[in-house]
Amino acid sequence: MVLRKKSRQTQRENPMNTIVQKYGGTSMGTIDRIKNVARRIIAKKEQGNRMVVVVSAMGKSTDQLVAMAYAINDRPPKREMDMLLATGEQVSISMLSMALAEMGQKAISFTGPQVGIKTKGVHGRARIMDIDTTKITQALADDSVVIVAGFQGVNENDDITTLGRGGSDTSAVALSCVLHCPCEIYTDVDGIYGVDPRLYPPAKKLDVVSYDEMLEMASLGAGVMHTRSIELGRKYNADITVASSIHDVPGTLITASAAATQKPITGMAVYNDEMMVSIKNVPYDVNISARLFSALAAAGINVDMISQTSPIADRMHISFSASHDDIDALEKALAEFQAAYPQTAVDLREDAVKMSVVGSGMKAHPGVASKFFRLLSAQHFPILMVTTSDIRISCMIPAEARERAVMAVADGFEL
Amino acid sequence: MVLRKKSRQTQRENPMNTIVQKYGGTSMGTIDRIKNVARRIIAKKEQGNRMVVVVSAMGKSTDQLVAMAYAINDRPPKREMDMLLATGEQVSISMLSMALAEMGQKAISFTGPQVGIKTKGVHGRARIMDIDTTKITQALADDSVVIVAGFQGVNENDDITTLGRGGSDTSAVALSCVLHCPCEIYTDVDGIYGVDPRLYPPAKKLDVVSYDEMLEMASLGAGVMHTRSIELGRKYNADITVASSIHDVPGTLITASAAATQKPITGMAVYNDEMMVSIKNVPYDVNISARLFSALAAAGINVDMISQTSPIADRMHISFSASHDDIDALEKALAEFQAAYPQTAVDLREDAVKMSVVGSGMKAHPGVASKFFRLLSAQHFPILMVTTSDIRISCMIPAEARERAVMAVADGFEL
Repeated sequence: MVLRKKSRQTQRENPMNTIVQKYGGTSMGTIDRIKNVARRIIAKKEQGNRMVVVVSAMGKSTDQLVAMAYAINDRPPKREMDMLLATGEQVSISMLSMALAEMGQKAISFTGPQVGIKTKGVHGRARIMDIDTTKITQALADDSVVIVAGFQGVNENDDITTLGRGGSDTSAVALSCVLHCPCEIYTDVDGIYGVDPRLYPPAKKLDVVSYDEMLEMASLGAGVMHTRSIELGRKYNADITVASSIHDVPGTLITASAAATQKPITGMAVYNDEMMVSIKNVPYDVNISARLFSALAAAGINVDMISQTSPIADRMHISFSASHDDIDALEKALAEFQAAYPQTAVDLREDAVKMSVVGSGMKAHPGVASKFFRLLSAQHFPILMVTTSDIRISCMIPAEARERAVMAVADGFEL
Repeated sequence: MVLRKKSRQTQRENPMNTIVQKYGGTSMGTIDRIKNVARRIIAKKEQGNRMVVVVSAMGKSTDQLVAMAYAINDRPPKREMDMLLATGEQVSISMLSMALAEMGQKAISFTGPQVGIKTKGVHGRARIMDIDTTKITQALADDSVVIVAGFQGVNENDDITTLGRGGSDTSAVALSCVLHCPCEIYTDVDGIYGVDPRLYPPAKKLDVVSYDEMLEMASLGAGVMHTRSIELGRKYNADITVASSIHDVPGTLITASAAATQKPITGMAVYNDEMMVSIKNVPYDVNISARLFSALAAAGINVDMISQTSPIADRMHISFSASHDDIDALEKALAEFQAAYPQTAVDLREDAVKMSVVGSGMKAHPGVASKFFRLLSAQHFPILMVTTSDIRISCMIPAEARERAVMAVADGFEL
């Protein structure tokens, strides 16, 4: 693992490295697991590190708090929801601090507001703007382990805010950015995989992945990490390691792209919950696409991939995909469109799957797209639509072809 | 109920009274009970009042948090314990705020630190020093119900503190002091009783009781209210009403003594867990009492009542009482005393009960003590020891006489 090597090197020069660690809800789920986390922190501290530890709420406690809120109000006010949810992490930090004290290790816990995690934006999806490191630095100098509540902060009105599901990752990365130190995310998986091992059992854990690749994979539904945490890491060039909180094996280093371009393709993401719409025989008109997609946006439909053919004989084809959640609104909008343009043929396919390959190496390795299509075409199913970015190729395929497609592509690119 | 009359009168002059209400853990124990609390608040608000509401943690949640802490650490650090326990009230305030929102009532919740409840002193037993009313006043002006977490505050280091068991009473009274408004404590009893109804079923609820009487009764073990809350009420002359959160009946007004002296005796307290020591034949020596009680204090024994007879023929008797919890230390200390003074006769009685009558009216009504002793002596059991203050008479009696004594005194003074 690249990060560990680097830490050891720096350690020789400076015996008091600071490390930010983050432990998720599963790692904090029981008294015994909290004790296990405490032992891991002490081991790392005894190697000569200053420890800052971010924790999530214990086990399923956030889900339980959400259920309580909905039991009393169908639409709980978001400020009060944040007030409620923030208690989950506050329980965790005090419990971990007590566990460390019991093992003879001085520790001090801080809530997000106490440690000055300043946020902006709406409740439930606030963004970290700044962190005041005064208290942390003082406590570290006092030889304490500093424990910080993840997922929470405070806005300009002194209201408690939360960062959204998975926000503790972002708390940890943000702390590592302001403390200029590496960040270790401990979780219930061994690291980042190129393909979800549930889809492709021989999937290999990645040693290194770039921020850009992680962002492409996260937005495609392979979200191991909170997207905002990767954006922050990229912005401040923070080294982030994702590893298991139970097995003591190397994890995955998330870093700038330079280090991560050994292979043309780093990962594959598969997103099941897609619908695909094909509209044939659309009269060519420069405004017609704008009109169609404005109508869909007005109906609250989140359109994902879009493909439009060149007009032939004043007729063109438009295809797009959308989430299955929006099916009612979509059917209504399509009926209205067809009423306005009766000569068109509208086809809605509900069983589509979006499959993407992601890799920074794509830019350096020509022929990735052709290999991808060759691997798929050997399986004899239709590719319904294609879109690309500079490090991603996505295609829409029929749901029944999913397993074959995953195997063929994962085998072909050795994921 | 005196407070209600007063509120209505003031209301005519000033349609926007402020009222502080406090609801305890039992009143907040379930979703339905929280909704009930919300309805009560709205009803009071619709009468033209500005509402500030202090709540405790839901049901037994504080006990559960304490148990969690001790599961991970036999001696949890007090700062971290406060961090943990404070989450209980934070859950309550957000839940109540959501319940009010669901009923269409604007509400905003604040933690102790958010609302500037500044405390001093040790964690777990902090004392409120000051409250910043800025946020409360703003929110009231905005027509919101203000909900404040009881039991908690913040110290000069920005650490979260708690006020000790029952501390939400003190939070509520302190808020009523700084807001110059009445305080209504809602609980699972109908008010303050002159005698515990479990001891004396015909016990009457008091309409009025003075701060001093409440303090005497609280220190004697009849603690319905957090002692510190009464001390604050007395200091700032705040009107405090204690009433049921379920039954809509008048409660008890706690106020300055002037209003509460209709009867010579307001209440009776019985404290079961007492031991009584009699030392006979003690050689008269000006230093001997000091030596005895210094030894007891050094052994950590909390001595309660003390009685010493005048010396007769250079011999005197010393009696005192102590809590049963200290029996081991007491037996050791007494053995040492008798070894030093072999001529003394030491008698330890484990089955003693302390019974006290309290009343500000005692000062104005002569003959209260004689009536008290007459009532007891008619029951033909020995009175083992007597001490008094200006509004209290306490005596130690044999445990087997407890029921008879309670009936006789409660009947005799019409409690």
